[in-house]
Amino acid sequence: MKGIYFDGTRALYREDIPIPRPRAEESLVKVLMAAVCNTDKEILKGYRPDFHGVMGHEFVGVVEQSPDSALIGKRVVGELNASCGHCIYCRTGRTTHCSSRRVLGMHQKDGCFSEYMTIDTSLLHVVPDKLSADKAIYTEPLAAAFEILTQVETGPEKNIAVLGDGRLSYCVVQAMRAVGERATVIGKHPEKLELFRPFAHVSTEWEREGYEIVVEATGSPGGILQALEMVRKKGIIVLKSTYAGETSLPLSLVAVNEISIIGSRCGPFAPALEALGDGRARFPDITLFSLEQFQEAFSFTGFKAGFLISS
Amino acid sequence: MKGIYFDGTRALYREDIPIPRPRAEESLVKVLMAAVCNTDKEILKGYRPDFHGVMGHEFVGVVEQSPDSALIGKRVVGELNASCGHCIYCRTGRTTHCSSRRVLGMHQKDGCFSEYMTIDTSLLHVVPDKLSADKAIYTEPLAAAFEILTQVETGPEKNIAVLGDGRLSYCVVQAMRAVGERATVIGKHPEKLELFRPFAHVSTEWEREGYEIVVEATGSPGGILQALEMVRKKGIIVLKSTYAGETSLPLSLVAVNEISIIGSRCGPFAPALEALGDGRARFPDITLFSLEQFQEAFSFTGFKAGFLISS
Repeated sequence: MKGIYFDGTRALYREDIPIPRPRAEESLVKVLMAAVCNTDKEILKGYRPDFHGVMGHEFVGVVEQSPDSALIGKRVVGELNASCGHCIYCRTGRTTHCSSRRVLGMHQKDGCFSEYMTIDTSLLHVVPDKLSADKAIYTEPLAAAFEILTQVETGPEKNIAVLGDGRLSYCVVQAMRAVGERATVIGKHPEKLELFRPFAHVSTEWEREGYEIVVEATGSPGGILQALEMVRKKGIIVLKSTYAGETSLPLSLVAVNEISIIGSRCGPFAPALEALGDGRARFPDITLFSLEQFQEAFSFTGFKAGFLISS
Repeated sequence: MKGIYFDGTRALYREDIPIPRPRAEESLVKVLMAAVCNTDKEILKGYRPDFHGVMGHEFVGVVEQSPDSALIGKRVVGELNASCGHCIYCRTGRTTHCSSRRVLGMHQKDGCFSEYMTIDTSLLHVVPDKLSADKAIYTEPLAAAFEILTQVETGPEKNIAVLGDGRLSYCVVQAMRAVGERATVIGKHPEKLELFRPFAHVSTEWEREGYEIVVEATGSPGGILQALEMVRKKGIIVLKSTYAGETSLPLSLVAVNEISIIGSRCGPFAPALEALGDGRARFPDITLFSLEQFQEAFSFTGFKAGFLISS
């Protein structure tokens, strides 16, 4: 089958990848559409040198084989992290942090930039009929934004700033909006901020009195320092950005001002699918390429690139 | 009156300090005993170059004048932070973070290393009769340790490590013990760890499965990095150490492993006084000096140095 394969150094388009055979607990999924995430680009820069395999972790597909017969023929999206069920994290409800997890397109598990893929059946979520594939494709990044709402208590008395005007921030704003919160997006690019205006307050500067919650979604090392300036004492910084390297921090300020810095990663699919389904969360159109055009997809600078793989 | 005065560079013993006159909302307190905190030593190293005045913020005294007549003649301890009552922090119950706060012996307010001091009456707490001054003197540092329990949910399913084997850790262990938690103290010095053995598990190495909560109380910049190695995914690091300078952190690890880093400073006096009063919290004897011997008190390397000022 066709697919985009990472050989430890670079991405290759191949047509000789064997169709994968599902394990007992897995389903075989025919991939309809897949999307490029920043993490895929980070892999090309060396973020996961140990990984060899099919890239990609955001997809919409149709189940072809499954131990759960009710799923066969259904359109699905799927979570990234296959867990062992036995380790301290699995035993305490933190399966996305499983000590020996395999991660779609990232770690010991082929991803979704191919015609077929296998995935643990328990990770699949059925896409409502009314939700088109090019909207459902946003489920995974929106779910990661919903994770914030499982970690931090929001409410009318807590003003929220989202730092950064890229796609990560956009997902956060949509999750906030889905639960009735209107955040303030602080970005450097007035033209990018326009995209947020229907859903959030937008500004290139922050309010002097600060914010109770600052979501750091700039994707760059300087973001946390800016967040530390913006957050109120006893306030919360949610750390969404991931990037290689270290950042130097004035930790005494964190202690003295009793700031909380909370890391945030993968999140719950159910509320994300629901918000996409009923229109509470809205996304710009994805720009679709064929697998052969993977170089163009990876270098695309618009809102979101993806692959139309089957129909 | 006699006192230890910081002139912006160094500490001086003086006998010519005027007895302070209380403002309308303040009380005049005759200081019985005061204790040296690490923060005082940090001030000598340049932590608060803008401060000029009487040093010290840990004390037990007797109220001589007060707008609250019921307090006159009572033994008291007192909180550090005098707040304005009007700013965003005062209006939202975060008075210890008041934007224009004055801090005893640290910022725009003379401290307690002197025969008399003034303090906002609302910051005073009466010491129970049964509690001797040399025990009550530990109220402020113990209160700061109790702050952790207002920030983090503990419980039998959450194993807790306290990192560091100094006085800061000792206070944390006593606060934990007062609410029935038996933490594990991880330190480098077997002889110092002996002091903790009656109240906590002690070890020079940490358990490989990690800890749900790690209290970083080493007082040194390397502590946070060790805490990041020890804490479980989705776990909490409580940051108690304060020191000058910055620390370089792998923040992607914080995001990916969804770690929370929570700064923690001053805390509630009431539970600290209660735990000292009923013996749930126990401290070694303080070593007392006269104000004239301030150099010896500041360089003392035992558990805790203080000043016996009046009787």
